[in-house]
Amino acid sequence: MFMGASTKQGYDIAIKSREIIRDLIKDDVKGLNPYETDIVERIVHSTADPEYAKLVSMSSDFVEESLKSLKNNETILTDINMVKSGITQYDGEIDCYIKNEEVIKIAKENKITRAAAALIYASQTDFEGILAVGNAPTALYAAMDLIKKNEIKIKSIVGVPVGFVGAADSKEELHKTNIPNIITKGPKGGTPIAVACINSLIQTMNKVL
Amino acid sequence: MFMGASTKQGYDIAIKSREIIRDLIKDDVKGLNPYETDIVERIVHSTADPEYAKLVSMSSDFVEESLKSLKNNETILTDINMVKSGITQYDGEIDCYIKNEEVIKIAKENKITRAAAALIYASQTDFEGILAVGNAPTALYAAMDLIKKNEIKIKSIVGVPVGFVGAADSKEELHKTNIPNIITKGPKGGTPIAVACINSLIQTMNKVL
Repeated sequence: MFMGASTKQGYDIAIKSREIIRDLIKDDVKGLNPYETDIVERIVHSTADPEYAKLVSMSSDFVEESLKSLKNNETILTDINMVKSGITQYDGEIDCYIKNEEVIKIAKENKITRAAAALIYASQTDFEGILAVGNAPTALYAAMDLIKKNEIKIKSIVGVPVGFVGAADSKEELHKTNIPNIITKGPKGGTPIAVACINSLIQTMNKVL
Repeated sequence: MFMGASTKQGYDIAIKSREIIRDLIKDDVKGLNPYETDIVERIVHSTADPEYAKLVSMSSDFVEESLKSLKNNETILTDINMVKSGITQYDGEIDCYIKNEEVIKIAKENKITRAAAALIYASQTDFEGILAVGNAPTALYAAMDLIKKNEIKIKSIVGVPVGFVGAADSKEELHKTNIPNIITKGPKGGTPIAVACINSLIQTMNKVL
């Protein structure tokens, strides 16, 4: 299985696509290690948008800390179900609490988004693992706040919310912390970027660990 | 509920974002009716990528035929589960057969992708409705082939597969048919674009029908 392809035809398409992408972004990935490069290539593959090679930025400990967490089969927490459904090859748990009754209650009571409330809810469970945010800047802010207060065990954050309001600022703020993280600079981002990043890490783990 | 927002904070973000987008793409949506414009705005909202306003193209009957199908609570068939999970406000059925055992068998026997096999499988059920393709060009080709042979009841196609291999050609070919359709020109596309389009149509239906 390579990049989600499960048939010969799918495999051939994925290989050819990777070759095109490697050529398109080769100048942008100079200085990245092979695992980091794979993440960037996979993001460009999933969006057909080479600009992402210029927008992606990850902390130097992001891959290592994420792989450690995945190897321990820790949970992947996602902000919305689209991210959860895109992660198809993981043996550990993948959780999304956006439709959880308790989360809806927390959101209403505190007048916050459900995406932020889901982080508060997760902090009250035995959650330990990776956070993948493909949609809601408010989930990133809630996560940073809970980490600062030492109330949640997040090992790394895939922080790629999308939008013209708040997304860029939330990612910039995350990138300044010492939390292992990957972001996309500016308003662009989204669920395929979060999914591509996590799936690349899972594939790397299966290959090298 | 506006654009998936279910709290005051989420609503405010969505409204502000729409204002920014309207200003960014106003020259690109000249000549579109309000329902078509809403689709384009929502696609740009979900990607934070104004280029989509230049890439989206829909047949003149796309909105009308899609709304008719949705009003009749017909099924929405998606190529992958990420598209299915993004459609959160529909009363009708939303199906995705990519993991179906029979589909996997058809794919292996015919040496085709599972996304294409899922269309063959759907043609053997009582499926009738809208096809939303956010990932696999092969699903589009299979759909066009089955429609030509009069073997599947597809009322309209959201055809926005993504990728450097095959995606652009498949969309161009779809756009030349007389099937009611929306596409994104070139390699770009993806699940958020398919989801944004369907969710815009559902919201329009709830407002006007």
